[in-house]
Amino acid sequence: MSIEPRKSSKKWRRKLHEVIYEADTPAGKTFDVILLIVIIISLILVMLESVPKLGERYEDEFIIAEWVITIFFSIEYVLRIISINKPTKYIFSFYGIIDFLSTIPLYLTFFFGGLNALIAVRSLRLLRVFRILKVTRYIGEAEKLSKAIRASAPKIAVFLFAVLVVSIIMGTLMYLVEGPESGFISIPVSIYWCIVTLTTVGFGDIAPVTPLGQFLATLIMIMGYGIIAVPTGIVSAEFTHGSKNNQADSSSEKATEYRHVNTQVCQNCLANKHQDDASFCHKCGYSLDVN
Amino acid sequence: MSIEPRKSSKKWRRKLHEVIYEADTPAGKTFDVILLIVIIISLILVMLESVPKLGERYEDEFIIAEWVITIFFSIEYVLRIISINKPTKYIFSFYGIIDFLSTIPLYLTFFFGGLNALIAVRSLRLLRVFRILKVTRYIGEAEKLSKAIRASAPKIAVFLFAVLVVSIIMGTLMYLVEGPESGFISIPVSIYWCIVTLTTVGFGDIAPVTPLGQFLATLIMIMGYGIIAVPTGIVSAEFTHGSKNNQADSSSEKATEYRHVNTQVCQNCLANKHQDDASFCHKCGYSLDVN
Amino acid sequence: MSIEPRKSSKKWRRKLHEVIYEADTPAGKTFDVILLIVIIISLILVMLESVPKLGERYEDEFIIAEWVITIFFSIEYVLRIISINKPTKYIFSFYGIIDFLSTIPLYLTFFFGGLNALIAVRSLRLLRVFRILKVTRYIGEAEKLSKAIRASAPKIAVFLFAVLVVSIIMGTLMYLVEGPESGFISIPVSIYWCIVTLTTVGFGDIAPVTPLGQFLATLIMIMGYGIIAVPTGIVSAEFTHGSKNNQADSSSEKATEYRHVNTQVCQNCLANKHQDDASFCHKCGYSLDVN
Amino acid sequence: MSIEPRKSSKKWRRKLHEVIYEADTPAGKTFDVILLIVIIISLILVMLESVPKLGERYEDEFIIAEWVITIFFSIEYVLRIISINKPTKYIFSFYGIIDFLSTIPLYLTFFFGGLNALIAVRSLRLLRVFRILKVTRYIGEAEKLSKAIRASAPKIAVFLFAVLVVSIIMGTLMYLVEGPESGFISIPVSIYWCIVTLTTVGFGDIAPVTPLGQFLATLIMIMGYGIIAVPTGIVSAEFTHGSKNNQADSSSEKATEYRHVNTQVCQNCLANKHQDDASFCHKCGYSLDVN
Repeated sequence: MSIEPRKSSKKWRRKLHEVIYEADTPAGKTFDVILLIVIIISLILVMLESVPKLGERYEDEFIIAEWVITIFFSIEYVLRIISINKPTKYIFSFYGIIDFLSTIPLYLTFFFGGLNALIAVRSLRLLRVFRILKVTRYIGEAEKLSKAIRASAPKIAVFLFAVLVVSIIMGTLMYLVEGPESGFISIPVSIYWCIVTLTTVGFGDIAPVTPLGQFLATLIMIMGYGIIAVPTGIVSAEFTHGSKNNQADSSSEKATEYRHVNTQVCQNCLANKHQDDASFCHKCGYSLDVN
Repeated sequence: MSIEPRKSSKKWRRKLHEVIYEADTPAGKTFDVILLIVIIISLILVMLESVPKLGERYEDEFIIAEWVITIFFSIEYVLRIISINKPTKYIFSFYGIIDFLSTIPLYLTFFFGGLNALIAVRSLRLLRVFRILKVTRYIGEAEKLSKAIRASAPKIAVFLFAVLVVSIIMGTLMYLVEGPESGFISIPVSIYWCIVTLTTVGFGDIAPVTPLGQFLATLIMIMGYGIIAVPTGIVSAEFTHGSKNNQADSSSEKATEYRHVNTQVCQNCLANKHQDDASFCHKCGYSLDVN
Repeated sequence: MSIEPRKSSKKWRRKLHEVIYEADTPAGKTFDVILLIVIIISLILVMLESVPKLGERYEDEFIIAEWVITIFFSIEYVLRIISINKPTKYIFSFYGIIDFLSTIPLYLTFFFGGLNALIAVRSLRLLRVFRILKVTRYIGEAEKLSKAIRASAPKIAVFLFAVLVVSIIMGTLMYLVEGPESGFISIPVSIYWCIVTLTTVGFGDIAPVTPLGQFLATLIMIMGYGIIAVPTGIVSAEFTHGSKNNQADSSSEKATEYRHVNTQVCQNCLANKHQDDASFCHKCGYSLDVN
Repeated sequence: MSIEPRKSSKKWRRKLHEVIYEADTPAGKTFDVILLIVIIISLILVMLESVPKLGERYEDEFIIAEWVITIFFSIEYVLRIISINKPTKYIFSFYGIIDFLSTIPLYLTFFFGGLNALIAVRSLRLLRVFRILKVTRYIGEAEKLSKAIRASAPKIAVFLFAVLVVSIIMGTLMYLVEGPESGFISIPVSIYWCIVTLTTVGFGDIAPVTPLGQFLATLIMIMGYGIIAVPTGIVSAEFTHGSKNNQADSSSEKATEYRHVNTQVCQNCLANKHQDDASFCHKCGYSLDVN
């Protein structure tokens, strides 16, 4: 299905590509803002529809609004496909699938009726927000954050494993000590309670009532209190370390960040992260400019 | 309404200005302490008035006390206006508006009756405390604190956005899994519960009862447990970094702090942060001393 | 009442002083351990006595045990007074008052009957533990800890003030939004709830039920979530900074710690922190050794 | 019972030893993975058996499954003993005792009937997981973690002691202030509540109702809020410090880690941590290779 780019006749496709996929031009920015607003409205509608009083009272309005949004998303999806050289690549990309799933829930109700599961599919539209936000100035920070978290991942994995082991042992003990009368009706529920306590959430729907159970609970809490320090310490050290490195090679870092701030996407192969002054795709050599 | 300063005849105004706006003289300090006490008493009265037993029993006493405070604030407000050269500048400044709002609640009851909303307006008096506390030795620390927080702001914004996204996705899932029977009566309520859980507050007014719901809750809690490390790590790194910088340029820092410790406020343009040995306003050249 | 030290006849007093006030000799150590055990037993008795079932069943046993402990403390208190040169100095010192209060609760029941408040007085015995623990190897760590906390004190004070202000403002808002029906019966209770929420404790005895109230609660929680990072960051930075300094001047630090590890207390003026090889009190010149 | 190694005839024992105790060969890895799966299945069975609905419905299936697992563990235990030169050393080692306890619960039911305590014994199988996980790449991280925690131990001990003291004092006060009507039925229960609050868990099964009690609770919470910063700060500083040291001596560290990554265990003396190219045990000189 790959289509040869012909500069003259396909100019509108390039233009369309620029509006839909990029945010460097006023038209592209406007498109992104409109899309963001529609997505957020559609999410708010899903939420409000679930509120019993509103859902029943404004049932028709909700259906109409969902129709409008579905049609908008359908048109957008079709435009995304026709404005690109290799549609299959887009269709099976992560965001391509998200876009498709964002579009179909209403169509599916014809086949399956008003399934509850469709609410989950409609909520997936949230993920579309990320593509649009890619253009914000927070990317650099988000990348630093995820880098620090990724660097801490093995330490945190060991730590979470330790939490799990403590929860299983203490959960079993609490089940034996407290028994079903206090709400510890089974070992899985006891483990659930144990995690609720270790993480200092403490719902209180289940709480120990025997002196021994309360003593064990005290141990679990103090453990959790000491334990909460560990992931925090890990991430703190990672950030402290990271921020020192950032200062050291701030010049090279800045260069890297600079490269990412434009939102050019190659029309041919969907590659992004082009340099600001690039005229050709650094992956496939296809021209990036609208001539 | 701008009035030309005439040294001889307007001496009492300069004196008044010094007492009300500054805290370098004994009279100024006494005025600030009295004002602080009146504000705190007025806040305590608002609180106690809301206690059902007290509010009914001592209704008359509360009204009398509120009248005394309102008259005190009215006089103070008038004095503030007449002791300054450019009253409009004060009236429309942040603290000018706060002072006005602190004064009027009782007068408004003549027009609107005993509105509940007036409690909120009366609580705004709390903000007046900040102007007085400006003179304490904690300013330096407060500035360092707010600097560290401001420096972490973009990272924390990214992080809060992530928390929001997790809450929306997991909240929708919990709504589908648990349903209205367990208290998850709508998606907004589920999202509320999700934030309650992620932040490890855990009221327990809503709690999952199905095994799958409890399993999801466990995931959310462990996520929250890991997540709590992130803002802490960010701020820790910022403070560690900050305290290092502070050591490095402690000499220049000290100089900066030094400049702020006096409470001189120009009578003409309300500019503050004058140097200790300044005789003229660094903004408008108006004389700062009472001669 | 000051008595002149006479080396020959008062040898038993010096010996007694050494046993009671110091922990360098086997006899002194044994005395401290026995005292520690008696204190802990007396504390456990206070606790168990409050348990309804136990308190009624073993009423007589509890009274006998309290009598034994009171007599033991009485004898110890008398010995402490007669073994020292300046008894008044001891009697009005911090630990002298604690010792006195630890001894008298039972005697007071003759005058006032079984007051509940005496439980609080008896619990003060806990503080006696600290004098004994002074001799453990944890002193160094405890000092570092308290130093780090003291260094962070002004920052934490600013921070706690901010928490208080947020609690007052949000508490008033929640009172207006939720009203007495949801448990927010007065502004002080709302502020209490606000602090419960901000600190992520979340008892759940009071919880918002209106959508607006839940939305405000969400804001408070996320604020608390971000805020919890601040004191942690402050203390982390302080510790990180502190541990660096410790490494730098570890030699001088070691010397300081060394000076504190013996438990010599001057019999004349109660000064402590003598050097290990000191033969005379560094404060009053009184001989430290038992000759 | 020590058996002399004879190369020719005992080759199968060496082979068996390698499969059971090491994870360097495909057979050894397969054995470990199968063992891990059986252990996890047995743990899941213990948990599910405790769920009332499942435990009654599938009672026979649970008994059959437990029999299969017990027989598997019994065979494995016998093989472990016969494949080693000094069986007594294994039998009385930590993991030897765990293995034994993992095997016997079902046999014990013949003597004692279906005791609840056997559930706890069966849960001990969890500990067997650790031996198998020894081979994963997380060892290095786990060691760093436990090193940082161990280094912080004395500081954390001082801190926990402080928490305990605060809990005892505030718990006693809360008991006196709130009394049995609010759920503070005894001092131990009050102390339990105090720890629940200080650690920010906040079950809400007990909550203060009097104004004075709520005020004290507020103090406890803010204290807990400030206190939570301390262990976090300690561990953060330890990690920050640790990660700096790691960078400094990364070369020597790498060498150390390298030595640990193989899973060779001497058949004669059970020593581990052999170098990768070792042919003889570094403890007893016994040949490590299967010839």
